[in-house]
Amino acid sequence: MAIHRFRPTRYYNVIGTAEPVLRVADGDTIIADTIDASGLDAQEAQASKGPNPMTGPFYVEGAEPGDTLAVRIDRLTPSRATGWTYSPLAFTVLDPAAIPERPATQRVVWDISPNEGVVRLQNPPPGLESFTPPIQPMIGCFGVAPPLGQAFSTSTSAQNGGNMDYRRFAPGTTAWFPVAVPGALFYLGDGHACQGDGEIVGTGIETSFEMEVTLTVLKRKITWPRGETADDIFTIGNARPLDQALQHATTEMQRWLGEDYGLDARAASHVMGQVVRYDVGNVFNPAYTVACRIAKKWLTRR
Amino acid sequence: MAIHRFRPTRYYNVIGTAEPVLRVADGDTIIADTIDASGLDAQEAQASKGPNPMTGPFYVEGAEPGDTLAVRIDRLTPSRATGWTYSPLAFTVLDPAAIPERPATQRVVWDISPNEGVVRLQNPPPGLESFTPPIQPMIGCFGVAPPLGQAFSTSTSAQNGGNMDYRRFAPGTTAWFPVAVPGALFYLGDGHACQGDGEIVGTGIETSFEMEVTLTVLKRKITWPRGETADDIFTIGNARPLDQALQHATTEMQRWLGEDYGLDARAASHVMGQVVRYDVGNVFNPAYTVACRIAKKWLTRR
Amino acid sequence: MAIHRFRPTRYYNVIGTAEPVLRVADGDTIIADTIDASGLDAQEAQASKGPNPMTGPFYVEGAEPGDTLAVRIDRLTPSRATGWTYSPLAFTVLDPAAIPERPATQRVVWDISPNEGVVRLQNPPPGLESFTPPIQPMIGCFGVAPPLGQAFSTSTSAQNGGNMDYRRFAPGTTAWFPVAVPGALFYLGDGHACQGDGEIVGTGIETSFEMEVTLTVLKRKITWPRGETADDIFTIGNARPLDQALQHATTEMQRWLGEDYGLDARAASHVMGQVVRYDVGNVFNPAYTVACRIAKKWLTRR
Amino acid sequence: MAIHRFRPTRYYNVIGTAEPVLRVADGDTIIADTIDASGLDAQEAQASKGPNPMTGPFYVEGAEPGDTLAVRIDRLTPSRATGWTYSPLAFTVLDPAAIPERPATQRVVWDISPNEGVVRLQNPPPGLESFTPPIQPMIGCFGVAPPLGQAFSTSTSAQNGGNMDYRRFAPGTTAWFPVAVPGALFYLGDGHACQGDGEIVGTGIETSFEMEVTLTVLKRKITWPRGETADDIFTIGNARPLDQALQHATTEMQRWLGEDYGLDARAASHVMGQVVRYDVGNVFNPAYTVACRIAKKWLTRR
Repeated sequence: MAIHRFRPTRYYNVIGTAEPVLRVADGDTIIADTIDASGLDAQEAQASKGPNPMTGPFYVEGAEPGDTLAVRIDRLTPSRATGWTYSPLAFTVLDPAAIPERPATQRVVWDISPNEGVVRLQNPPPGLESFTPPIQPMIGCFGVAPPLGQAFSTSTSAQNGGNMDYRRFAPGTTAWFPVAVPGALFYLGDGHACQGDGEIVGTGIETSFEMEVTLTVLKRKITWPRGETADDIFTIGNARPLDQALQHATTEMQRWLGEDYGLDARAASHVMGQVVRYDVGNVFNPAYTVACRIAKKWLTRR
Repeated sequence: MAIHRFRPTRYYNVIGTAEPVLRVADGDTIIADTIDASGLDAQEAQASKGPNPMTGPFYVEGAEPGDTLAVRIDRLTPSRATGWTYSPLAFTVLDPAAIPERPATQRVVWDISPNEGVVRLQNPPPGLESFTPPIQPMIGCFGVAPPLGQAFSTSTSAQNGGNMDYRRFAPGTTAWFPVAVPGALFYLGDGHACQGDGEIVGTGIETSFEMEVTLTVLKRKITWPRGETADDIFTIGNARPLDQALQHATTEMQRWLGEDYGLDARAASHVMGQVVRYDVGNVFNPAYTVACRIAKKWLTRR
Repeated sequence: MAIHRFRPTRYYNVIGTAEPVLRVADGDTIIADTIDASGLDAQEAQASKGPNPMTGPFYVEGAEPGDTLAVRIDRLTPSRATGWTYSPLAFTVLDPAAIPERPATQRVVWDISPNEGVVRLQNPPPGLESFTPPIQPMIGCFGVAPPLGQAFSTSTSAQNGGNMDYRRFAPGTTAWFPVAVPGALFYLGDGHACQGDGEIVGTGIETSFEMEVTLTVLKRKITWPRGETADDIFTIGNARPLDQALQHATTEMQRWLGEDYGLDARAASHVMGQVVRYDVGNVFNPAYTVACRIAKKWLTRR
Repeated sequence: MAIHRFRPTRYYNVIGTAEPVLRVADGDTIIADTIDASGLDAQEAQASKGPNPMTGPFYVEGAEPGDTLAVRIDRLTPSRATGWTYSPLAFTVLDPAAIPERPATQRVVWDISPNEGVVRLQNPPPGLESFTPPIQPMIGCFGVAPPLGQAFSTSTSAQNGGNMDYRRFAPGTTAWFPVAVPGALFYLGDGHACQGDGEIVGTGIETSFEMEVTLTVLKRKITWPRGETADDIFTIGNARPLDQALQHATTEMQRWLGEDYGLDARAASHVMGQVVRYDVGNVFNPAYTVACRIAKKWLTRR
């Protein structure tokens, strides 16, 4: 169970099959630097171009196609004191008739204050002087190489993960990805200091991070990403429109409740019908992300 | 501020312009019986046919087209000891390729136990013997007459409300509807003893209720339904696909933040981008429902 | 087989259950005046308000719920020399990112020249001086009262027809509608002198018409509107997104091929897979319209 | 203007950046063998695995990122006497509620008869004995390497082309693709002997081909694929849902009418509003395809 401290010298804008930058054992921990969505590093130097430059890929010994890679998010520490967002709301979340009335796109800067545990606009407009939501770090984009030799831009997501921008990919969560190539080839980056549902301004608070994750190979097969927090299990669907993302996530949850909790389709529906929660990861990227989530208190492992 | 005890003798399967069953003053409270989605009353007698037979319409003195009707949900008391749901999951929430593997649709019965505060399957399948989620009563379908002389089936929803099946339409919430006809013509019914997000089995736990609501006329104009709970404000979009419902809700929230909280489009985006929450009301009915929600702690009324 | 000459004195902006303006026998022909989408009549006088004021409803003797009303479009004659369209392209057909670059909405006027058989912009921009597409008259909005006492705005469409804006609802076509109330209650209006696919400027060339239709009751049940031209049969789906409209139309065509042509689902798929055509009626209204069309030369009535 | 006769020895299931199999000059013609969607060659031997194994990539001298590759389809000759389709209709084109009633998926074989110019089911079900639609050869999947080092499965499509399954990609048509890498890296395959709109059984009549295409570099920039036939110009959008594909195609056509025909957004809308045609390429693959088409008779090159 080694701990690897990795400092990248190059970055990837696609998630695909590339030469690994590091080989780690099943169960190892990686502490890695990541840069922000536009390529700015901890010194705000332009270390790469966008979109969402990735750190990696990491080869995990023993991971084979058909396996699952479990990624425990141990720690996400912003590595600089500012982050940025776009404003106003993205085209994708407004009534088309309301789009002409939106102001032009602008990039604004937020201070990230670990002492206070909050973020704060550097130049708040009137009324937002005291708007200081908590730092809630999350991984915007991470995942494993897809099958067939495919390679996907880090602006989007698919069954292999990618740019899901879901705020529950946060410290304490373990994310699962379906392994499609030997070694899994795991990438991560695009950290956000804070983000609401849907990434509806087109960004979270984008900044550089030191990310610590622990990688474990599970000898089981999944179809879509899954996750577990202290309280919940969840499944992820990535697609457009949101309806299809929700269908993928719901179908994957039905499978999971069968596999691990002994619930057939009808029994699973009794549980999901009464206690399921849906979260909108992002409604901005080429593929939207919906999570289907159930509190573990309602479930008993078989 | 009178309290009216209303016992319906007929029910409506459309929300439209019909002869009012009761005229109430601005600020009055109505305590009304409602029957379940399939028309069964407190004695499980077939009092009407489906879909979602409505109690009402109630004429609210002083409500004029262009106003807003605020409906404070004071109390929702199930009026019988059982409710029912469908199983398995609805077609709309499954991958099309997974649909052929689902079992046939069945209606199952749940006990509603006010003493314990829970619901419980009468014949639980293995593994669900101790699945007893809390009673969380909500209104599935309510709203006001739409404009133009339109009349919409209570199986669907629109700007005037209707069958939104959103679990936060619960006691303590005040819902706002855009008034389109004199007197507003308010209808309500389709109570659920419990329901997860999305109404993904096609029902909540459907039962009859005694519902208590207080109706107030606001001299202001809204476009889509809005709501307020102890902690949050929210806006509602009703449409297909989910993307469009989300656009309606988000656009309405942007308007609200401007009207009442002094935030222009850019300032509103700074708040929404970091703290917005989306809820899926239903993803089953002809029109889907998405709520855009913000905690009031982030907002200051102008 | 009487011919009725009907001159309306009032118009309807919803298609629902209203007092019939005329009762006709099964097989009768109606010649009726219609006004344009904004309510301008043959004298360009404001005879009604929009949207899409309807002439009717006509009660057809013998039409019962569960029957089908066949509407043969015998003749559509513009009753004035001009029509109007909007420009530029509608919000619904542009990439959201392209919407801010569109110019503001404008209404422009076209001359309708029956002698030449063409339409012509009154003030053509440079390059369009000789753009004179043929007059191709069509009915934008027609249909029958929906079930349950519902009433739908003439800006939208559903299983009962309505504002489908499909250019093959033209002279020589027979349209079928599912009858939901006694007498069917048929409405028509919103004639266009010309229109491309999708009604992508939000209008056809809107003008007043003298419309001649022959109404026949079929003792058979359909789910969605159907149609027949000299060469083709087609089915209609009305919904959002386009995907769902297409699913309704395709499913209805599969049913039709079974009912009248003896093709089971597999045989129908062999035919449809090789020769089906899809048309986009409108991609502008609240419900979009897709037609699923098959040339009759590929089919043999059972 | 050389003619190259190319016989592939390996095939690609992704369209990405790979070692070219042949370098050709701007203006050269390639005659290449392609195998069917499941990898069967002219001898019905399994030459590769699916999906849609591609012949190529071909490097075109002089093609640079930002250019356009024009692909004139000179000839598509089936290289064996049979092809296959799936039945029944795909999940994507049916109402979800109709899916459970569809029979199981089956592969059926068609004879391809060049002498008669038709295709014919080998074992037609009753009623289809004389169903012999014409051979209408088309390219199901072709395109150029996408930017950023991305690589996309040949089951889907994007701005770079791919599996569009549009029946107007037929002899006589010239297709345009946006070049993203030096040499363009052109792939082609997945020929169909016939196919209706939408590829609604999930296949055309899949067979091996000898394909002849002529490749020309245009020093101009496009965003989405475009095409030209004897009568029409068209633009292509690839996305889900159909609405978004249609938006991409329509926006690209608006651009084209500005670039080559001198029409600003308003003038373009006057033309498109009256004479545009939409075709559904496929409504089966991960990305759907919509073509926006205008007859050249309505346009005057600037």
